[in-house]
Amino acid sequence: MKFLVLCVLAYCLTFSIVEAKVRHYKWEVKYELKSPDCYKKLAITINGRTPGPSIVAQQGDTIVVELKNSLLTENVAIHWHGIRQIGTPWMDGTEGVTQCPILPGDTFVYKFVVDRPGTYLYHAHYGMQREAGLYGSIRVLLPDGESEPFAYDYDRSIILTDWYHKSTYEQAVGLSSIPFVWVGEPESILIQGRGKFDCSKAGIIPEMCNATSPDCSPYTMTVVPGKTYRLRIGSLTALSALSFEIEGHNMTVVEADGHYVEPFVVKNLFIYSGETYSVLIKTNQSSTRNYWITAKIVGRNNTTPSGLAVLNYYPNHPKRIPPTPPPVGPQWDDLAPRLSQSLAIKSHRNFIHPPPQTSDRVIVMLNTQNNISGYRRWSVNNVSFNLPHTPYLIAYKHNLLHTFDQRPPPDDYASTEDIFSVAENANATTSNAAYRLQFNTTVDIILQNANTMTKNNSETHPWHLHGHDFWVLGYGRGKFDKINDPNKYNLVDPIMKNTVVVHPFGWTALRFRADNPGVWAFHCHIESHFYMGMGVVFEEGVDRVGKLPRSIMGCGDAKGYHRP
Amino acid sequence: MKFLVLCVLAYCLTFSIVEAKVRHYKWEVKYELKSPDCYKKLAITINGRTPGPSIVAQQGDTIVVELKNSLLTENVAIHWHGIRQIGTPWMDGTEGVTQCPILPGDTFVYKFVVDRPGTYLYHAHYGMQREAGLYGSIRVLLPDGESEPFAYDYDRSIILTDWYHKSTYEQAVGLSSIPFVWVGEPESILIQGRGKFDCSKAGIIPEMCNATSPDCSPYTMTVVPGKTYRLRIGSLTALSALSFEIEGHNMTVVEADGHYVEPFVVKNLFIYSGETYSVLIKTNQSSTRNYWITAKIVGRNNTTPSGLAVLNYYPNHPKRIPPTPPPVGPQWDDLAPRLSQSLAIKSHRNFIHPPPQTSDRVIVMLNTQNNISGYRRWSVNNVSFNLPHTPYLIAYKHNLLHTFDQRPPPDDYASTEDIFSVAENANATTSNAAYRLQFNTTVDIILQNANTMTKNNSETHPWHLHGHDFWVLGYGRGKFDKINDPNKYNLVDPIMKNTVVVHPFGWTALRFRADNPGVWAFHCHIESHFYMGMGVVFEEGVDRVGKLPRSIMGCGDAKGYHRP
Repeated sequence: MKFLVLCVLAYCLTFSIVEAKVRHYKWEVKYELKSPDCYKKLAITINGRTPGPSIVAQQGDTIVVELKNSLLTENVAIHWHGIRQIGTPWMDGTEGVTQCPILPGDTFVYKFVVDRPGTYLYHAHYGMQREAGLYGSIRVLLPDGESEPFAYDYDRSIILTDWYHKSTYEQAVGLSSIPFVWVGEPESILIQGRGKFDCSKAGIIPEMCNATSPDCSPYTMTVVPGKTYRLRIGSLTALSALSFEIEGHNMTVVEADGHYVEPFVVKNLFIYSGETYSVLIKTNQSSTRNYWITAKIVGRNNTTPSGLAVLNYYPNHPKRIPPTPPPVGPQWDDLAPRLSQSLAIKSHRNFIHPPPQTSDRVIVMLNTQNNISGYRRWSVNNVSFNLPHTPYLIAYKHNLLHTFDQRPPPDDYASTEDIFSVAENANATTSNAAYRLQFNTTVDIILQNANTMTKNNSETHPWHLHGHDFWVLGYGRGKFDKINDPNKYNLVDPIMKNTVVVHPFGWTALRFRADNPGVWAFHCHIESHFYMGMGVVFEEGVDRVGKLPRSIMGCGDAKGYHRP
Repeated sequence: MKFLVLCVLAYCLTFSIVEAKVRHYKWEVKYELKSPDCYKKLAITINGRTPGPSIVAQQGDTIVVELKNSLLTENVAIHWHGIRQIGTPWMDGTEGVTQCPILPGDTFVYKFVVDRPGTYLYHAHYGMQREAGLYGSIRVLLPDGESEPFAYDYDRSIILTDWYHKSTYEQAVGLSSIPFVWVGEPESILIQGRGKFDCSKAGIIPEMCNATSPDCSPYTMTVVPGKTYRLRIGSLTALSALSFEIEGHNMTVVEADGHYVEPFVVKNLFIYSGETYSVLIKTNQSSTRNYWITAKIVGRNNTTPSGLAVLNYYPNHPKRIPPTPPPVGPQWDDLAPRLSQSLAIKSHRNFIHPPPQTSDRVIVMLNTQNNISGYRRWSVNNVSFNLPHTPYLIAYKHNLLHTFDQRPPPDDYASTEDIFSVAENANATTSNAAYRLQFNTTVDIILQNANTMTKNNSETHPWHLHGHDFWVLGYGRGKFDKINDPNKYNLVDPIMKNTVVVHPFGWTALRFRADNPGVWAFHCHIESHFYMGMGVVFEEGVDRVGKLPRSIMGCGDAKGYHRP
């Protein structure tokens, strides 16, 4: 009998190690008054926190998030950024694409498998709610017994964001007003949800800003000297491109968007909204002091102070201010090191997923700023995107094709366009049409940047693809040359990513396999740019998508699909 | 042939005069940055305006409002305040009671008959959206050939509101926080959507407040000397009881909530949130100048400046400031004139609807402020109301009775309660149970006021009943005496109303016939009080309610009732 019990116990133990787990989370989303940068503002929290709770799981685990919407009058949806949702395209959390919004009072159950190890994110994907604080990190560990191609003693995650004092409502109203009101530069940069706004600034009501609030004491990462730390860094800025730096410590880049990188060393890491990186740092500096961690805005001329956190060498006091000034970081307008970092990121030599050597379809996407009926917009090939009222996935699957424009959006732009000047005709059209990709084909996307509506200005756009990783085949300056540039593609060891930057006046080429049945958004990860139309949608193999759960229904023509 | 055409034409003309009309309105609801009191704030507008467009119709007309929700992430619902919705209880616009909220992007069609002449209102009935500016007036005229029991030359409508600079989100978060954060007194009083906040106040950022903005030039009512004006006044304040006054002009009260009043003359009119009055004024003063119109807060000690508008005697310049200071109005804490006005409002002698002389059921409703698990709440008989997730009307009709508490709420309060002191035990419970009324019975409601959680304090509560008018049988000071007070009821010529005030430390008795099949909210019309639980719901004859339209479905257990 004793033997039997032992056997069962042993079996259970083995089983629990070997078998994938189901990880349950119960989250309540609501508004709370927070002071992440010392300035009081309503934030959207999960279980009272922003950033929300971290999801930590093992490859193959099933994540179940019971999400209760406790906002008063506002709906919600959460996207699992970097998780491909293979077989569960309805769980991607993209309002208007893969699901209807979750109503106040409703509980929506997200359930999906994290099928690859790596560093991922989650965040609201409805209106501009992400920047109200609804985000967090996902860390997927290797199965027991497997190990990374690099060694480290400790594993830490931080998320970088920028923070505005205006509400998302005010921002959205300004963006869709005539005259156009731009959101402007953020008031502060948050490192793991903490920043420091200068409360002594003119016009700040003292009761609104408390420099000593515990909410805005700088994020402190305590380290033991002589160890190696894996630091997982994600950016979910609303607007800003950042340079991340740890005073006196080089960083070895080892992971990007869930893929192992052939290691390279940087003094500062450029990171764009929607990207994640793992870097290794060695705590091999003088242990008699603390060091600054900084996040500085690059790519835009601005006066936003850099985000500051503290690398706290044990046993120094965590609140002990580093004795030296924080590193000043790179010049905001020096593009060269950013381009050079982009080019440096290649697949780890032992983990190369060889890309298909040819593609079946090439879509060139010109990124432009436009005027449409007096409104300021962003467009792809002069088509500015807007979400339909019935989510695409439901519309395709249930044959509600009248709910959005069926004329295909353009695969290229007019050859007469001059990407180096302000467009003579900045007009564009709006559409909610989708790109339909043939299932299991290989698709190339060339993201072509251009001059904005301001002379000698071109912006930085991080593009994020849902449902896939893509190979990054190349970056270039100027206008993409369809004949010669493809010859320079890296078809040997390109990194796979889900978010990639398009540099000012440059192009970025990427390739992916349309092998994940569903409908997937592909858009600039800058919150206001997507809101202003900078995105597209891909449909692929939607006929292979299983029965849609009723819980994603309830809006537009998908009303009433909840019950039989 | 010519004769035939003429005949048809004549027939059409006659027809259009005699037959009820269908009046179509196309409304788009969205956020816009407005400065109704010179201070910039996001307001919810209808077709760009707050107050929204007025509905002007004739008795018997059908109103069709196509309401497009163009808010970004927020739902909406509009209540037609004072319209009884006989036969169309699903069109009452009360989110959680008669319908699911209207999603962003959705168009909901409200369709109902205005069956009685008079002065009514419309406003948001979801969360606390009303006070964000989503409201307007409804004026229902008599059929051609019929006339009012009073004469006038011109007919004007104005709505009074109070205005906060904090968003409704911030207010709601404060109200449901521990520690409790009260909304405080409003920053200003708006007359027909215009007020004047002092932009020179300390701590006001200049760019947020523009004293010369046309949005906040005072409302001007231009009049011709020597005429009689019917002025329809409605109050939709979030909190404030008001005294309305026109410098140098007496007002003759002739209508209250759509019912003719036996005329009486006042110098100032007390008006509570949810009430409407018609007053007649004669422009018989010196026509060489303009006169102030004021709306002053009463019943609460406050420093909010009175709302100011201008009675502009033609041909004086509308912007000419009256030469005398605005009337100071009554003392805020002088209850006597308020009670006396309440008692003065009786039915016009030629338009008496005799009340039933007895009732079938008496429900006493003690109004108290309470603590529930550390949260501040308001209650009726120590039960604090909260809305269920599935609207009652749908739940009753479709037998989804598990969606809310079926234990009936109490018809009375414990006789041990002392209404004159702070309750020793201020605890209460929450419930979403409804009062079920037997169809076609007569119900008496005694609203009993009490001391709040502050010593020697009792507040003013205007209670509004949906779906009915009720007879106001009496008001009293102190504790209602069930034996003797009913003998003093006015059963001869009581006014009928849909909103009635309960004075501090007083009681108000009302009677109605439960003869309108449906589910109807009855609640304090103070936005924050209802939010904090000060309301109940009545069900009556729900088995007689016709087939519910699918458009009201889509939330809670009513998901999927949209399609067969």
